[in-house]
Amino acid sequence: MKCNKCAQRAVFTMRHYKLSLCETHYMEWFVSHTGQTIQKYHLLRPDERVLIAVSGGKDSLSLWDVLIRLGYAVDGLYIDLGIDGGFGYSALSHQKIDAFMAGHPETRLHVVDLAAEYGATLPQIAGRKRRGREKPCALCGLIKRHEMNRIAQAFGYDVLVTGHNLDDEAAVLFSNVLHWHTGYIARQAPVLEERTGLARKVKPLCRAYEREVAAYALIRGIDYIYEECPYVEGSRTLMYKGMLDQLEEEAAGTKLQFYVTFLHAKKDGFFRDEEALVELHPCDTCGQPTIAPGSCAFCRIWKEPER
Amino acid sequence: MKCNKCAQRAVFTMRHYKLSLCETHYMEWFVSHTGQTIQKYHLLRPDERVLIAVSGGKDSLSLWDVLIRLGYAVDGLYIDLGIDGGFGYSALSHQKIDAFMAGHPETRLHVVDLAAEYGATLPQIAGRKRRGREKPCALCGLIKRHEMNRIAQAFGYDVLVTGHNLDDEAAVLFSNVLHWHTGYIARQAPVLEERTGLARKVKPLCRAYEREVAAYALIRGIDYIYEECPYVEGSRTLMYKGMLDQLEEEAAGTKLQFYVTFLHAKKDGFFRDEEALVELHPCDTCGQPTIAPGSCAFCRIWKEPER
Repeated sequence: MKCNKCAQRAVFTMRHYKLSLCETHYMEWFVSHTGQTIQKYHLLRPDERVLIAVSGGKDSLSLWDVLIRLGYAVDGLYIDLGIDGGFGYSALSHQKIDAFMAGHPETRLHVVDLAAEYGATLPQIAGRKRRGREKPCALCGLIKRHEMNRIAQAFGYDVLVTGHNLDDEAAVLFSNVLHWHTGYIARQAPVLEERTGLARKVKPLCRAYEREVAAYALIRGIDYIYEECPYVEGSRTLMYKGMLDQLEEEAAGTKLQFYVTFLHAKKDGFFRDEEALVELHPCDTCGQPTIAPGSCAFCRIWKEPER
Repeated sequence: MKCNKCAQRAVFTMRHYKLSLCETHYMEWFVSHTGQTIQKYHLLRPDERVLIAVSGGKDSLSLWDVLIRLGYAVDGLYIDLGIDGGFGYSALSHQKIDAFMAGHPETRLHVVDLAAEYGATLPQIAGRKRRGREKPCALCGLIKRHEMNRIAQAFGYDVLVTGHNLDDEAAVLFSNVLHWHTGYIARQAPVLEERTGLARKVKPLCRAYEREVAAYALIRGIDYIYEECPYVEGSRTLMYKGMLDQLEEEAAGTKLQFYVTFLHAKKDGFFRDEEALVELHPCDTCGQPTIAPGSCAFCRIWKEPER
């Protein structure tokens, strides 16, 4: 099959756009498509100082690469949670990021080593008595949100970028709808606006299918960590992604339509948003905004008795 | 396993309620649970004249049986669409209804024979040139809605009852959400209130799992048509039902929670309902309310050129 833009052989086909492209035109398309998402949802302004949270996976490294090519000044943040999983997951992730950075001497990487900074790795906290055999995924999200915001604020970044792709966003929406988590539904968006003490958070890959991002990383020669986090196995999110894959297989474009039509409905005021009603107070330990008075959930982690 | 209410052997278990019951107590439970749904959502008042749309399947016949046992005066309506499918689907359905009625001489059955009344069966209309090879399911829904309302109005029934069960409602909601059909989402409910020219429509089985209804029919000895409508095969709805079954398998109660939490969100005003803005006009052919001026969609069917 030929590229839809030149006479070269197409290497990648997107059924939902009825588009097949060669390597050169695919890379060009992906960068420009991400730029369009940024414009469409007003995610970034050209002069802003941007901090991207990187995991060493294809999404965050590809996005970092795309943002640099779009001309943004972007530094990275790696949060080392000390996950091993039998193959040194966290250490390997860090290596991939270092390898990427070797090609981008203009960027800076902030590293938070959870064990060095707070005295325990994620598996250690998750293993503590009180938490039983709970999966550490919720805890991981909590820690990352806190630390991302801390670094963004401490170093004066205007905006925090994450590599969530369309498959991630569609799966979260699917889960929120199945449980009718109305607060989460009303707030799910490509951009979470700044509030006092909370940096703005944006997701420029929210319209990019996971396989589109993987194709970009492959064609660009970005070396990323292929292994999934060892904790992801058997998670509900994986099941939801599997179902959305099935629906996509049946009708190309389903995931994109599910997410984008949701954003339209939201913009049209279909959902009542009560977020404005929730007042935030500074945590009495770290000072970051939190809902309940006293210490925030992150600071409470470190006050739990060790086993 | 023993019945949770007596010493008899349990014949049916509902994981989501952690409840196992013997034949007698299951029948009692099912009738009372349906009565609770009727109370909870204000579906029926004791003195109302009720018309139930029956298909000969387990849902409508079981519901008819339950409503009679709850003391309501309920007549039936059968719409014969002339579907054969190689085994006389419509004729067989009619037979099952007649068999049920033999045990209930106090009830009356209205029959609309589409071919006799309007000159063509559903397969004949669906096969007409203009419609191409479209599945007749949308057409079937349109015809049934029109004729149910016509009979309810003509004979002065207060309310129209259909046998939609939880699996049906959850699948419709799933589809509406996947496509963000906001108007349909805002209006999906156990009761559709009366408007000028439109009878009130209610779904007393909306909280009953399909397998609960099947168990009731089996235990009560209600003979129903086991065969699905020949057109249902390969439909999107079947795929959605399959996915909801998978989710239910993973976590008992998922379907019920998906539907009931939705109703809560709706009651709390989470969705903006614009229905009140839509003005209805009487169809210039049949007089039933319709959105567009001129003839309603049902009357337009009969004006299409035959092939």
